[in-house]
Amino acid sequence: MPHIDLPDAPGILAGMMFRPETAAPLNDLAEVLLRGDSTLSRGEREIIAAYVSQLNSCNFCHNSHATFAALQLDGGWDVVDQVMADPDSAPISPKLRALLAIAAQVQQSGRAVTPETVQAAKDQGASDVEIHDTVLIAAAFCMFNRYVDGLGTIAPPTRADYEPMGEMIVSVGYAASTPPIGS
Amino acid sequence: MPHIDLPDAPGILAGMMFRPETAAPLNDLAEVLLRGDSTLSRGEREIIAAYVSQLNSCNFCHNSHATFAALQLDGGWDVVDQVMADPDSAPISPKLRALLAIAAQVQQSGRAVTPETVQAAKDQGASDVEIHDTVLIAAAFCMFNRYVDGLGTIAPPTRADYEPMGEMIVSVGYAASTPPIGS
Repeated sequence: MPHIDLPDAPGILAGMMFRPETAAPLNDLAEVLLRGDSTLSRGEREIIAAYVSQLNSCNFCHNSHATFAALQLDGGWDVVDQVMADPDSAPISPKLRALLAIAAQVQQSGRAVTPETVQAAKDQGASDVEIHDTVLIAAAFCMFNRYVDGLGTIAPPTRADYEPMGEMIVSVGYAASTPPIGS
Repeated sequence: MPHIDLPDAPGILAGMMFRPETAAPLNDLAEVLLRGDSTLSRGEREIIAAYVSQLNSCNFCHNSHATFAALQLDGGWDVVDQVMADPDSAPISPKLRALLAIAAQVQQSGRAVTPETVQAAKDQGASDVEIHDTVLIAAAFCMFNRYVDGLGTIAPPTRADYEPMGEMIVSVGYAASTPPIGS
């Protein structure tokens, strides 16, 4: 149950409807990080977001971004499920696997990121921008996850519940879903 | 030492100069949360940011936001130092003390926030918006701290090093300090 009197909407949507002034930069950040120009595909970036959300046990963000990943990643849910069960054996590129290892360290703490893990990603061809964006995606989901669960928002229970939101994010993106201020 | 080839600047400034596309929404978020219209003073919001940064052992963010708090809070460094040593005995309002307790739970995990801690803040007069903003400030600094340390950025060692940045933030704010894209 939400800790404060929020609009009747699931997960982060409740917080964003409650406070559109902060929703705008939050959606702008998600837009540039997860959908902006990048040498990482949208599916790859969404799977990093979903993986960190799983590590933080945030059901709403995990289910949302796993759905967004499944809709945009070659292999769909089959690959997403394997990554969530065990990134080391999942059928993904060695570069994405190495970036997920950086993301897992960021989820613990910024200070937990080691030169060795970063070097392993570089050895698999990761660029400095890709490493930067992986660190910031992982860090951002440590925020989004805490925001969603720190307000006590509601997480719909089944995958099917997240499909409509997934279709919307894939087609129009995050920035377009910011509620108008004063609505 | 930075994990990737960053511009020669301290802390988050290096990441923001490296990637102005993500700097813009990050600064916009800090601007609305820490300086936008609010019934919490700018000093109160900066001390929440500094406190969470201390809990995350992020030296750059802690020193920066402790400086910004000291410049804007009645009592200056004397009060800031007492809050960092022990919020329970520091000379602050019971409402701010209760909000810091929520922030400390958010720093652990969104799921660590309890109805009792939120109720204690309400009992001290905290509004739903103040509780929302406290949760999001604490969550945002779990991002900023991981971003700054996950890139391995440099933290200047002394308080005096943070004074010029403090004067700039107090006078022009966060949004005005976003580097232009392509600079």
